[in-house]
Amino acid sequence: MSEPVFSIGVDYGTNAVRVLVVRCDTGEEIGAAVYDYKHGEKGILAGKGEMHLARQSPRDYIDGLNEALGKALAQADGAEAFSRERIVGIGVSATASTPVPVDREAVPLGVRDEFQEDLSAQAWLWKDHTSIAEAEEIVEVVKKKELPYLKFYSGLMSPEWFWPKALKFIRSAPEVVRKATAAWLELTDLVPAYLTGVSVADDVVRGICSAGFKGMYSEEWGGYPPKDFLKNFSEEVARLAGRSPVFKGPGESVGSLSDEMASRYGLSRKVQVSAGIIDAHSGALGSGVGERSLVSVMGTSSCNIGLIPYERYRGPIPGISGVIKDGVVPGMYAVESGQGAVGDIFAWFVERILGGRCSHEELTERARNMGPGETGLVALDWHNGNRNVLMDMELSGLIVGLRLDTTVEQIYRALIEATAFGLRTIIERKKEYGYEVENLIACGGIAKKNDLVCRIYADVLGVPVHVAGSSEACALGAAVCGAVAGGAFQSLSAAQEKMVPKARGSFEPNLGQRGIWDEVYGIYRDRYEHYSRGGGGGDIMKSLLALRDEAQA
Amino acid sequence: MSEPVFSIGVDYGTNAVRVLVVRCDTGEEIGAAVYDYKHGEKGILAGKGEMHLARQSPRDYIDGLNEALGKALAQADGAEAFSRERIVGIGVSATASTPVPVDREAVPLGVRDEFQEDLSAQAWLWKDHTSIAEAEEIVEVVKKKELPYLKFYSGLMSPEWFWPKALKFIRSAPEVVRKATAAWLELTDLVPAYLTGVSVADDVVRGICSAGFKGMYSEEWGGYPPKDFLKNFSEEVARLAGRSPVFKGPGESVGSLSDEMASRYGLSRKVQVSAGIIDAHSGALGSGVGERSLVSVMGTSSCNIGLIPYERYRGPIPGISGVIKDGVVPGMYAVESGQGAVGDIFAWFVERILGGRCSHEELTERARNMGPGETGLVALDWHNGNRNVLMDMELSGLIVGLRLDTTVEQIYRALIEATAFGLRTIIERKKEYGYEVENLIACGGIAKKNDLVCRIYADVLGVPVHVAGSSEACALGAAVCGAVAGGAFQSLSAAQEKMVPKARGSFEPNLGQRGIWDEVYGIYRDRYEHYSRGGGGGDIMKSLLALRDEAQA
Repeated sequence: MSEPVFSIGVDYGTNAVRVLVVRCDTGEEIGAAVYDYKHGEKGILAGKGEMHLARQSPRDYIDGLNEALGKALAQADGAEAFSRERIVGIGVSATASTPVPVDREAVPLGVRDEFQEDLSAQAWLWKDHTSIAEAEEIVEVVKKKELPYLKFYSGLMSPEWFWPKALKFIRSAPEVVRKATAAWLELTDLVPAYLTGVSVADDVVRGICSAGFKGMYSEEWGGYPPKDFLKNFSEEVARLAGRSPVFKGPGESVGSLSDEMASRYGLSRKVQVSAGIIDAHSGALGSGVGERSLVSVMGTSSCNIGLIPYERYRGPIPGISGVIKDGVVPGMYAVESGQGAVGDIFAWFVERILGGRCSHEELTERARNMGPGETGLVALDWHNGNRNVLMDMELSGLIVGLRLDTTVEQIYRALIEATAFGLRTIIERKKEYGYEVENLIACGGIAKKNDLVCRIYADVLGVPVHVAGSSEACALGAAVCGAVAGGAFQSLSAAQEKMVPKARGSFEPNLGQRGIWDEVYGIYRDRYEHYSRGGGGGDIMKSLLALRDEAQA
Repeated sequence: MSEPVFSIGVDYGTNAVRVLVVRCDTGEEIGAAVYDYKHGEKGILAGKGEMHLARQSPRDYIDGLNEALGKALAQADGAEAFSRERIVGIGVSATASTPVPVDREAVPLGVRDEFQEDLSAQAWLWKDHTSIAEAEEIVEVVKKKELPYLKFYSGLMSPEWFWPKALKFIRSAPEVVRKATAAWLELTDLVPAYLTGVSVADDVVRGICSAGFKGMYSEEWGGYPPKDFLKNFSEEVARLAGRSPVFKGPGESVGSLSDEMASRYGLSRKVQVSAGIIDAHSGALGSGVGERSLVSVMGTSSCNIGLIPYERYRGPIPGISGVIKDGVVPGMYAVESGQGAVGDIFAWFVERILGGRCSHEELTERARNMGPGETGLVALDWHNGNRNVLMDMELSGLIVGLRLDTTVEQIYRALIEATAFGLRTIIERKKEYGYEVENLIACGGIAKKNDLVCRIYADVLGVPVHVAGSSEACALGAAVCGAVAGGAFQSLSAAQEKMVPKARGSFEPNLGQRGIWDEVYGIYRDRYEHYSRGGGGGDIMKSLLALRDEAQA
């Protein structure tokens, strides 16, 4: 590249949308802006008396994009070598599954005046849990008819996903809303369609990432599950999939920027818009995910993204709830896994139990110099159930080894170790299926704030842990997709090489302590097996939950 | 009784001696005095750099008795119908095993000027743990030779007991101290000997209570274990048992008050001194222990005393570390059991974990209205090991059922419930051996301070819980023994009927919740079995302790 070119990353989070302007040959972030959603509580519309409901106004998506894009570009204008015409691509990442009902012209119902007050006409945010029954119903039918549609999810269907929400929408939305709805679009697909000026709902390109991880898409059955399958649940829901939609992967262009958008922001009409990608997955790209580098987004919970090249792929991984062909990078299977609580467990202990009498920093300092086994404790990190590998939300946390001299820092450290052990069980499961991890790239709040966590993860996993260099990894990952779609690079990995910054810190495992760590992990693993389904102790956790729920009712 | 008579109770605790003057026909406590030991830290002499050592100066015992006796009598002098001549008996209770080396004249070596600085010449306080190896050695020989001497202790020998301490004394005391020692006397035996003016060590009567519970005494083998057995360990240790001592039970007189003591305090020379009794056991008497009433002394740890009449006795109870014929009341087997930590567990949570940010009172209020199972938790109360029924000090505490919304009051309540479940396992074991509990009499600090604990115990055990009426139960129990020895009553139970005050409060079990409590107890019991020896999870606790000890070393 003789003249530097630029790419834009747009990232829709739970409470705000971020826009980043990035120089493609250096990764330099030359413009950035955030727009906090204006509707509801921090952008979330809650139901009256319905605690599982979480919606968003699509107006925030459109207004936020326009305002943040304008601001980020204005900031970029001052940067060296930049001009708006040198922008080649735009990538979009967003939470998922966050489906939005749109009308025949691909306009979200929620922006139309007549539907503004109707919660069913808004975007159904990822953490909306109103379709628990629908998710169970889908699983039941798939199991009963021995259909393949959950094979890449280990048989799991979360109420957070695309189809249970669609079914719930059909069953609960007023007729006028349902009739006005021509398609049910992921937010990751709606925004690229808006940017490229698509005006027919059926023409909207669907992203493989969201469709693959949340929508039962697979090229094995040619897209979403067949309409005949969807009709098991409702005639109408089958219609929401659109008439034979086209699916594209991250970095693939869904079209050029619309004339309107190009002229509004002074951008070239040749700007290519990438197919959308889920935010965590885009964060993995922006953190440097690779064939042997697993990215772990460590926040309140954790989400891990890894890649398996076709030639090492050995089929879906039991207990891992997403193995999607070309889901993040073409030519590779993308593997998503996670732990239901990580930072939430540390926060539970510090805030709810200790009432803040010791800070995370204080406990970290006191726990810093302990060796493996020194806490005398082993904990199970199931305070919010076990997402992977057990996929059982009715499990609970455990601490064993308590003595009268057990200290708060020993418990704190044991909880950190438990989450590291939990990740190790996931990595070991993947290893059985051909996926080797040579290093862990940690990003998210905890990775940045707590070096002891990284240190313990390195020791427990036995691989180096690198802290991701960008603090806007999701938006950066979107910009990486934009750059590839716009032709600045031949591949996502080539783009990553230039655009993803170096690790801000690295932790090498202490291999001298490997033996003791293995011993402590052995104890964790033993408890893990014992308390899991069929392990003898699993029913105890379920009984305790049931007893509690009965008593509280 | 036309004219009221009176009895004196003397109780040697860990930090002080108490004297109580009691009216026999009403139980009225008309005089009381306390003497705090003057030597060492709160009466305890610590070793330099030897953390397991805990000794006391016998000077405190003598000085304390004289001062407190004088004060209690002076206070009683003002009481209605009292005169010093109407005192008929004195009873003595004390911590045990707290052996004291004495010279030929039955004078404690520790009061002699030349031995004052020698820790081995002092009293070996119950909680001195310097003879761990000796206790193991005794167990080994008994097991190897298949001897019966531990049959009433379920095969257990604590380093806190009489013979391990004697052996350690012989092996570690300077020759000059050993040579000067004519006998090794329990404090419960030393004080009655002092009161009756015994001046020959071999003549000191030994109390069945201490000898039975702590000194391998049984009438089955005619007293202490035979000298031939003791010679397995040392020639000298055999000598410390005295030449064929006489053994007497609580309420049996060991003799009349000495002329010197009688004239010093203006008491009758006919005053009879009862054989000594262990403080917890005397506390049981003073709280109303009976054939179907189990007394639980609930403090930092718990000690339970129960009685089995001869006709229902079915032999020693496995896992219960003391079943002693006539050990507390003639005609009954006395059964001692205990839990290694009760109040210590609650204090661990409130002080060490919460740092006092919530008080016991606050947590109790918040936990008060929860029903069975409502915590969602089950804990094992093994933070200080399991004394009975498992007799395994290397076990540790456990909490299972933790969720992100688990609160401090739920944990607090689960810990209380765990100690109640622990007591239930003990009672169930006793039941298998013919001992039924119809009600629990709770005494000690926790019973008085925390009504929620009593409430939970009643519900978990399914029997009424009465809070003992006297706040000086140990000294009162000693006075009961004194009254019987002095002829005021025909039996201890007759004396208890008059002298032991009514319960200060009673808690009836909520039988409507029995089913749910049984369910929660079932989960506790399941974990209890799982984590005990051979239960699959027991080794985990031992491994964790071993790993911790290694790491800290």
